[in-house]
Amino acid sequence: MAVPQPSPAGFRSIATRLGVKDGADDFVVVVSDEPTTSAAVFTRSRFAGPSVRLSRAAADRVRGVVVVSGNANVATPRGLEHATLLRGQAAEQLGVPAEELLIASTGVIGRPYPIERMLPGLRSSLTDPLPEADFAAVARGIMTTDTRPKLHTARCGGATVLGIAKGVGMIEPDMATLLTFFFTDAAVPQPELDAIFRRVVETTFNALSIDTDTSTSDTAAVIANGAAGPVDLAEFERALHSCALALVKEIAADGEGAGKTITVEVTGARDAAQAKRVGKAVVNSPLVKTAVHGADPNWGRVAMAVGKLHEEHDIDPERVRIAFGGELLFPAEQTEALLDRAARHLGGDQVTIRVELGIADGEFTVYGCDLTEGYVELNSAYTT
Amino acid sequence: MAVPQPSPAGFRSIATRLGVKDGADDFVVVVSDEPTTSAAVFTRSRFAGPSVRLSRAAADRVRGVVVVSGNANVATPRGLEHATLLRGQAAEQLGVPAEELLIASTGVIGRPYPIERMLPGLRSSLTDPLPEADFAAVARGIMTTDTRPKLHTARCGGATVLGIAKGVGMIEPDMATLLTFFFTDAAVPQPELDAIFRRVVETTFNALSIDTDTSTSDTAAVIANGAAGPVDLAEFERALHSCALALVKEIAADGEGAGKTITVEVTGARDAAQAKRVGKAVVNSPLVKTAVHGADPNWGRVAMAVGKLHEEHDIDPERVRIAFGGELLFPAEQTEALLDRAARHLGGDQVTIRVELGIADGEFTVYGCDLTEGYVELNSAYTT
Repeated sequence: MAVPQPSPAGFRSIATRLGVKDGADDFVVVVSDEPTTSAAVFTRSRFAGPSVRLSRAAADRVRGVVVVSGNANVATPRGLEHATLLRGQAAEQLGVPAEELLIASTGVIGRPYPIERMLPGLRSSLTDPLPEADFAAVARGIMTTDTRPKLHTARCGGATVLGIAKGVGMIEPDMATLLTFFFTDAAVPQPELDAIFRRVVETTFNALSIDTDTSTSDTAAVIANGAAGPVDLAEFERALHSCALALVKEIAADGEGAGKTITVEVTGARDAAQAKRVGKAVVNSPLVKTAVHGADPNWGRVAMAVGKLHEEHDIDPERVRIAFGGELLFPAEQTEALLDRAARHLGGDQVTIRVELGIADGEFTVYGCDLTEGYVELNSAYTT
Repeated sequence: MAVPQPSPAGFRSIATRLGVKDGADDFVVVVSDEPTTSAAVFTRSRFAGPSVRLSRAAADRVRGVVVVSGNANVATPRGLEHATLLRGQAAEQLGVPAEELLIASTGVIGRPYPIERMLPGLRSSLTDPLPEADFAAVARGIMTTDTRPKLHTARCGGATVLGIAKGVGMIEPDMATLLTFFFTDAAVPQPELDAIFRRVVETTFNALSIDTDTSTSDTAAVIANGAAGPVDLAEFERALHSCALALVKEIAADGEGAGKTITVEVTGARDAAQAKRVGKAVVNSPLVKTAVHGADPNWGRVAMAVGKLHEEHDIDPERVRIAFGGELLFPAEQTEALLDRAARHLGGDQVTIRVELGIADGEFTVYGCDLTEGYVELNSAYTT
């Protein structure tokens, strides 16, 4: 991946190897030259790791992020001590208060960091100041089972929004996704940034499910350093949303073992929340996911998945409509020609399933991927 | 499978082919000689099929069951008409009121019955009286993707409880499982039979999940004809429970593509309901299921699955204990010897995961199976 142009001004970074992973960068730091506004959301897992706990307690206006990849530092006896030590050393080297750095860590659960190996490398690699930010290297440095880095930018007046993300399994985010960070040189006041970020996350990362499993390490943050001056806030929200949605689609496409992305557009619901529940039921159904994998226009499995929501008493099969791509399959006469056209859509690598509930005008779109033999192979063989 | 001894007295049956499936029995009827007491529970799917709707409205004391396999008769324009016609014809041939027959149907969704082919065969095969019950043939006749019939018996005083079940995919029953029928010659009063049956279903079929998907056709019923006279009701409940649990374990072992059964025993919960939610989160996690498939002692994925229940604020990682078989893995020093012993347990075909929450004394056990390449292959290639 080429370094995208432009990058937000006023950020510095390093991506290096501290011996957590074999033969790849496993430690990155991004820091702003100047004070910032920022917002962040985290996993709600009861097994949230020490990195999440430290970052939750971080300052409102963080200066940067420290990310370790390859080890989640979760459910180990000295996890909090290690996370505190790593963040503290990084802060000391960079000359910023420790509570102004977010720390995040993903990878295997239940194994201690190789901390003796990590600390000397950390001290020798963190110069002050760091080199000018190389976001492409940062996007690569936070990967675990990802097959490719995920980075998107959007312009907003004279400012740039840049987002990176990692994570392709254990993904049904709830208030956040695995790891995603947005950096911008726009000046955005703190309360507005927080409100905008929560709205954006709700319709992007919280609309994504790879495999119904929720990580213990999910962290999403945006850091705005104001180097490009003030921007129109509505335009900023659109730019942030477009970056986030592009990252979500890339994560779905890179889902563990995935061959296709699945977009489920639910319309005609009582409200957006009901539409989201219906969309999640469809995109999470292993029988729907395997039917998509096999390019089988088996809309009966979509009906089954909608039907599982037995507490939604206003969902009436008589009013439900189900389409694959542009093809209405239920209700419809099941002709060979229709099923062939639907199968052709399912044979592509971007599948859209539409469910119209016929109740009111609530709508929500969710994102996921098919379930393949590759997912099973990867997760049977690999300790994550 | 040999016909088990003994069978409950006073039942008659037929298993035959009406052309729904290719080359296998697809139509069965079981009927009691004498009036009965009975109880039944059904899927709560919003897309429940016409068979479920007719059976829900059936009499309190049903005389028998009519089952079609290979076609669910769900989400088709004339489904209710067809189900009414089939049940009515069967009732006429057998000389019982139609509302005293349950009807059930499973298989592909969205395709009409080949009704013109079915009716003549139905009329010629249903003699009055039917032959004495052959429950082994009935258990085979209700199969769809099952690889083997499922039938268990238990004695209770001078009476027999016999249960049959089918279904190995689209299985996370909610108030019932795909299709399971219990026949007994015990005399059990109607209200007691209903209460006993609901208690038994709650800790057996409602504790089972193959793939988180819930069928549109789930039906569970018990029919008691009293031919063997009264029994001790506590003993009857134990007999019914043992039959139901044996069937649940067989369904899990025959789960689509499954190589291993997974039993998740949750203890130390606030109450049984919380223990059940924790158990379901673990047994439904694709990352836990693939780790079991790969015999990987990756208890971190169990911790992750427990952690997903973020609304259970009393779950404290500090008090949680996780074991595979008899091996406590969390908290524990992660020695090679320990991990080897855990991997050996996971290498067997009956895996037990124990989660102790350390809150109070609520407990619940759930049943499921691993996730394999075979599940993906089967459900990508086969229209169900």
